[in-house]
Amino acid sequence: MRVYNFSPGPSTLPQEVLTKAQKDLLNYDNCGFSVMEMSHRSKPYKEINQKAQDLLRELMNIPDNYEVIFVQGGATTQFEAVPLNISVNKKADYVITGNFAKKAYKEALKYGDIAIAASSEDQNFTYIPKNIVFRDGIDYVHITTNNTIFGTKYAKLPKTSAPIVADMSSNILSEKMDVNEFGVIYAGAQKNLGPAGVTVVIIRNDLVDKTHELCPTMLKWSTHIKDQSLYNTPPCWSVYVMMLVLEWLKNSGGVEYIQKVNEEKAQILYDFIDNSDFYVNKVQKEDRSIMNIPFTTPSPELDEKFIAEAAENGLKQLKGHRLVGGMRASIYNAMPIEGVKKLVDFMKKFELENK
Amino acid sequence: MRVYNFSPGPSTLPQEVLTKAQKDLLNYDNCGFSVMEMSHRSKPYKEINQKAQDLLRELMNIPDNYEVIFVQGGATTQFEAVPLNISVNKKADYVITGNFAKKAYKEALKYGDIAIAASSEDQNFTYIPKNIVFRDGIDYVHITTNNTIFGTKYAKLPKTSAPIVADMSSNILSEKMDVNEFGVIYAGAQKNLGPAGVTVVIIRNDLVDKTHELCPTMLKWSTHIKDQSLYNTPPCWSVYVMMLVLEWLKNSGGVEYIQKVNEEKAQILYDFIDNSDFYVNKVQKEDRSIMNIPFTTPSPELDEKFIAEAAENGLKQLKGHRLVGGMRASIYNAMPIEGVKKLVDFMKKFELENK
Repeated sequence: MRVYNFSPGPSTLPQEVLTKAQKDLLNYDNCGFSVMEMSHRSKPYKEINQKAQDLLRELMNIPDNYEVIFVQGGATTQFEAVPLNISVNKKADYVITGNFAKKAYKEALKYGDIAIAASSEDQNFTYIPKNIVFRDGIDYVHITTNNTIFGTKYAKLPKTSAPIVADMSSNILSEKMDVNEFGVIYAGAQKNLGPAGVTVVIIRNDLVDKTHELCPTMLKWSTHIKDQSLYNTPPCWSVYVMMLVLEWLKNSGGVEYIQKVNEEKAQILYDFIDNSDFYVNKVQKEDRSIMNIPFTTPSPELDEKFIAEAAENGLKQLKGHRLVGGMRASIYNAMPIEGVKKLVDFMKKFELENK
Repeated sequence: MRVYNFSPGPSTLPQEVLTKAQKDLLNYDNCGFSVMEMSHRSKPYKEINQKAQDLLRELMNIPDNYEVIFVQGGATTQFEAVPLNISVNKKADYVITGNFAKKAYKEALKYGDIAIAASSEDQNFTYIPKNIVFRDGIDYVHITTNNTIFGTKYAKLPKTSAPIVADMSSNILSEKMDVNEFGVIYAGAQKNLGPAGVTVVIIRNDLVDKTHELCPTMLKWSTHIKDQSLYNTPPCWSVYVMMLVLEWLKNSGGVEYIQKVNEEKAQILYDFIDNSDFYVNKVQKEDRSIMNIPFTTPSPELDEKFIAEAAENGLKQLKGHRLVGGMRASIYNAMPIEGVKKLVDFMKKFELENK
C-alpha cells in the first residue's frame, strides 16, 4: 500500500507518473524495449529529451534568450560549475541562508574573490536577509531560493544589477517566477522535477562562454548546450520520468494551478501549528517556505515518538534534518492535499494524547 | 512485444531485472513508496547502495586495497577525473584504440605532459597495438579494454610498471579479469551494469589523494570514497537497477558462467561471418571483441536494407556507428544466446535473398 511520503528529497512523485512509468517499463511506446535500454542517439530518446525541454520552457515561460540543459552530478556539481562558467572578474557575492548556500559559497572560494554579502546564520537560518548591499564589479549574486532544511524562501529577490544565480532545487515550478529576473537557475530534479540523477540548468545566453581557463569540459555549460544535452550518454530514465512529471504538471493546470494548491497545503499546516501551543515552527512568517515545513513538539523525546507513530499511520520520512531536529514535512508539488490533511489530523490526535 | 535489442548502449537489460523493477516500482519492499522517492539517507537506500557495492566486489573479486565508488557523469567525466586525480608527475601515456580512447587522451592533454604511446588509427582501429614501449616517470598508462565502435578488445594487457587505468565501460563483467593488474577501472553502467546515470570507479588505494590542485570536489574520487558514494544525492534508481543486474549475474552463475555464454555467442556470430563470402568483419582475429561485432554486406545499400528488414523481424538497433558504417551487433551480458541465433538465422535468409 502507498503511504504519504514527506521525504525532503528524493521525494514523492505523482502516482499517475509512476503508474505510467511502470506500465511502459518493459516496452516503451511499442518499440519493444525499455527507455533504460534505448540508445540516446535513437529517435524515441531524442523525442523524450526534446519534449522534456519543451515542457519545461512552456511551464516556466522561459524566454528564447535562455538555454536549457540537462546534466548530471546534482546541484552540488553546479556549486563549482557556476564560478567555473561565469568567470569574468572572478568576483562574486553569496547570500547564506542555509547549509546548501554555504556549501555553494565554500566551493566557489577556490575560483576567485568570493564574499558573503549577507547571512542569516546568526539566527540559525530562520529568516531571509533583507536590504542586502552587494559589491561593485561582481560577476553574479548567488542565492538559494528555498531552503530545504530550515524551511525558508525568498518572498522577494534581492536588488542588484548583477545577474542572480539561483539554486532553485527545492522550489522550482512550485510557484510563478519570472525567469527574466535570473541570470542562471539550476535545480537537482529530485524534489519537484523527477527522480535523482538529472539536474536542470537554465542559462541566459550572454552568460555562456565566460568560462574559467581550467573548467573541465563536462562542467562547461556550453558543452551541453551545443549538443542539446546529448554530448555523452545522459541519465535517460531520469530525463524520461522528469518528462512525465512535467506532462503531469501541465495536464493538472500548470504552475498557476499548482501554486494555489501549494499555498493552500502550506496554509493548512502553518495555521494549525500557529494555533497550537504544542507545535512550533521557528521561521519568520514572511520568509516561510511553502515546500518544507519544519516543526517540533515540546521535547526531543516526543519528537521521536511523533516520527515513529506517524510512520505507523502511513505518514513517512518526517524526521527533521539533524541540524534542526524535530520533524519536517516536505510538501512538494506531488504531495496531494489529502496527505497534508491526514498529517494535521494525526498532529491533533498526537497532541491530545501527549499534552 | 519485447524484441532483441542490439543497441551499443544504453543496451538491453535482463528481462527478469526489468520485471522485478516494474513490480516494485510503486512500492519497494513494502515501504509504501518507490526507490525513486526515497531519501538517499534512508535505511533502505543505504542497503541498496551497500548491496550493489558488495555484489560488485564479489563478482569481480575486488581486493580489499581497492575502493569502489558510484558517481555521476559517465565515463566521459572520468576522462578528466583520471588526470585530475592521479597527478604526481603530471605525465601519462595513452594507447589509442578508438574514438573514446582518443577523447580520453584529448581531455587529459589539458592537465599535463600526455603522450600517445601507440595507436591503431593507421588501420582504422581494426587491431590492438602490441609490444608498446612506454615512457619513464609516467603516472599511469591509459587503455580502453574493449572498443565499442570498432569491435576490438585487449586479449593481453600491455606490459608496464606504471599503473594501468582502464576504461572498461563496454566489457566490464563480461569475462574474468584480475583487478590486481589495474590501478583504476572505470565504467559507465549502460552496457553491462545497468541503466545510464551511474558510473563505477574502482581505485587502488595508493592512487587516492594524488589530486591536481584544481580538481573540482565533485570530480575527486576521495570525496565519494569518504562518504561511500553518498556525498550528495546519488542517481538512486540507476544504482538500484544496477544492484538488480549484479544480483541477476550472481544468480546466473557469475562471471565465469557469463564468460562461457559470451564466448559462445561471439563464436556463433564470428563463425558464421567468417564462413560467409557475403558478410565481412574487418577486425584482426586475435583482437576481436566478444561484446561488439561490426559487420557489413557487400554494399551500403544492402546494409541499409539489412537494418530495416532486421528491425521488422524483431532484431533492433543494429545500425553501425557512423565512423564504421554497416551493422554492429552489441551482444552484452544481457543478450540471450537465442537473440544471437535469431540474428544469424536472419543473416542467412537475407544473404540468400540478396546475393
